[in-house]
Amino acid sequence: MSLFLTTISVEEAVKTARNLAGPLPTEDIPLSSVYGRVLGADISADIDIPGFNRSSVDGYAVRSRDTAGTSESLPALLRLSGRVAMGERGDRNLSPDTCIYVPTGGAVPDGADAVVMMEYTESIGEDILVKRPPAPGENVVMRGEDFRAGEGILSRGTVLSSREIAALAAAGRTSVPVITRPRIGVISTGNELIPVENIPVGNQVRDINSWMCGAFLASVGCIPEYYGIIRDDRAMLRDVLKKALSACDAVLISGGSSKDDRDMTADLIRESGEVLVHGITISPGKPTIIGTVDRIPVIGLPGHPASAFVVLLVIARPLLLRMTGQDVQEFLTKNLVLGENIPSAKGREDYVRVRFRGGKVYPEFGKSGLVNTLIRSDGLVRIPSGIEGLEEGDTVEVILW
Amino acid sequence: MSLFLTTISVEEAVKTARNLAGPLPTEDIPLSSVYGRVLGADISADIDIPGFNRSSVDGYAVRSRDTAGTSESLPALLRLSGRVAMGERGDRNLSPDTCIYVPTGGAVPDGADAVVMMEYTESIGEDILVKRPPAPGENVVMRGEDFRAGEGILSRGTVLSSREIAALAAAGRTSVPVITRPRIGVISTGNELIPVENIPVGNQVRDINSWMCGAFLASVGCIPEYYGIIRDDRAMLRDVLKKALSACDAVLISGGSSKDDRDMTADLIRESGEVLVHGITISPGKPTIIGTVDRIPVIGLPGHPASAFVVLLVIARPLLLRMTGQDVQEFLTKNLVLGENIPSAKGREDYVRVRFRGGKVYPEFGKSGLVNTLIRSDGLVRIPSGIEGLEEGDTVEVILW
Repeated sequence: MSLFLTTISVEEAVKTARNLAGPLPTEDIPLSSVYGRVLGADISADIDIPGFNRSSVDGYAVRSRDTAGTSESLPALLRLSGRVAMGERGDRNLSPDTCIYVPTGGAVPDGADAVVMMEYTESIGEDILVKRPPAPGENVVMRGEDFRAGEGILSRGTVLSSREIAALAAAGRTSVPVITRPRIGVISTGNELIPVENIPVGNQVRDINSWMCGAFLASVGCIPEYYGIIRDDRAMLRDVLKKALSACDAVLISGGSSKDDRDMTADLIRESGEVLVHGITISPGKPTIIGTVDRIPVIGLPGHPASAFVVLLVIARPLLLRMTGQDVQEFLTKNLVLGENIPSAKGREDYVRVRFRGGKVYPEFGKSGLVNTLIRSDGLVRIPSGIEGLEEGDTVEVILW
Repeated sequence: MSLFLTTISVEEAVKTARNLAGPLPTEDIPLSSVYGRVLGADISADIDIPGFNRSSVDGYAVRSRDTAGTSESLPALLRLSGRVAMGERGDRNLSPDTCIYVPTGGAVPDGADAVVMMEYTESIGEDILVKRPPAPGENVVMRGEDFRAGEGILSRGTVLSSREIAALAAAGRTSVPVITRPRIGVISTGNELIPVENIPVGNQVRDINSWMCGAFLASVGCIPEYYGIIRDDRAMLRDVLKKALSACDAVLISGGSSKDDRDMTADLIRESGEVLVHGITISPGKPTIIGTVDRIPVIGLPGHPASAFVVLLVIARPLLLRMTGQDVQEFLTKNLVLGENIPSAKGREDYVRVRFRGGKVYPEFGKSGLVNTLIRSDGLVRIPSGIEGLEEGDTVEVILW
């Protein structure tokens, strides 16, 4: 019986993987550490922001009706009754036919409904000539105009950038609920693998996948736990998988590149859990395994780094992002015109590495498993399974690296 | 005399800021910690990668001349002379009219120049029938085909993603030279500012900029050093600036929002250094200061968070990226059609927050300094200084958040 008799589509595989686990619990961490984390709860404003009517210019707070109809030739004369200092705590009140100086960011006194910019005034002793009438509300940010007390500001699932962190600070959150980062075990299997620091002999190769997987996990907000290289020995792999399952929220097993090694990984998952997918109509990445042991997701990746990377991106990423609680899962993409034909076989979904050149996009062909295609390309183009390739001149959507 | 008499263009300001400092020195860190760091040296392959002729399929290694002209009805008969095991160290040699089994990733023996996939063969006792002739080189990744020993793989200035980290592992780098992360001091000034955990009274506001700046610095690969809130007191600001200058590679001073505060920051820089820019034809962000003290860059940001953010992105970012040694400085952008007119004054470069809706892009208008415009928008549209606004239907380039 063929290993891949039950090969399923990319869409089904992604759905299967995504259903294996939900977001982790939340934890509270200090505002200074939240950059890049995923918000674990909806956040509302605790107070009106700003908490007072705020001037957006340096000028004089006035009652707009006192200056109605004024002009350069017919200015209004208002008595200057005070100056607002930045950060002062008291409440001021504006009497009719007076004005109060307010700096940018200062509080507009009660009774005033507009601020005249300095440029449109002239100072004469203790009086101020206003030469241009402000509209009601002009140059004033009203109390609660940025956010009203109780108003929703940010939603659970938002990845926190500097802009959201500005909003958290405005809302007084020094401690922020975020979704705990998933710990993901990384295991590399294969008799041919040696540690990176060694020089390969014969047909040995360095273990690339551990480090590529670890960095990929970091890029989607997970914490990699490295379990090293396991030779193709069932008992050793069983032991290390057990160890990883007891400490991690999911496990990635990469390699081996040969059929026997792949079978061993599937067999071990089956021993104490369930293999849900073994073979996907994706290229590269066909021999991918999706399973669970004790309700913990276990993904078997192809041994070739370039293939493993496509599977990480297309199959593992949706599950990992779900575990991290991230709302937005779409790739960053760019539409570009293809500069060269890309052939593709019907019945499988192809992910072709592409490169930008002169405003167009070109396939970066290379034999299976070459690492150089990963670093010499700018992104991936997906060719759906129903299509026999793409043609020069087609506009394609490039998934940006 | 007007504060902004010497206002300069955005282009000049960016050039001035960028020239203030170069990349920091390199340091060596372990491969497991390099994700997101900037490579500090060019990296070459230490060995041929792969180090042997590698089979990319499960099949039989053959001399292609021994199978020339074979077909389903006229197969070649080759004696199976052995099986390559994964990771074996010995060198094998293929005799004429024989074949050797090689698993995917295994070494193709000397003498063989192609691998026939299992699917195109049949096993008869100790002989193998080959039914389809492989082309010379078929299914073989040649020694050094991924990278040749000594070949340049990655350049200094590359930001290390999982794909580059795969290449570093392939090249045997367990210790990686990266550019040291700049430490950037963050100071907030203004009598109106209170710590985030406090409830504002009167016209107090919470210190948003410290946290927004800190997260922004993290996003461009810098380490923020927080110096807290300094009231508008010249001696106190002088002390803390001195402290920051002695420990940091650059300093950001945000606020105050009033003219007096801004003048104080400029005066203090001038006391022991030089103010190079005081006022930029940018909106928002006009009252920006660029200076140096003891050859350390000091940037004075506007007090309003939304304005400060635009200045961080447009003016500070090119300098910060240069200090981190990053080669690529372009923004991620997307071209979209404008769904609404955006007015703009000639003679200043406008950065308008915009929002995506139904495949089009709309300006997110809001009074100066509102934090909500930062989190409710999807990006920025730049309106060059020579243009009086953009019109509905124009295609605009959106700088993506």
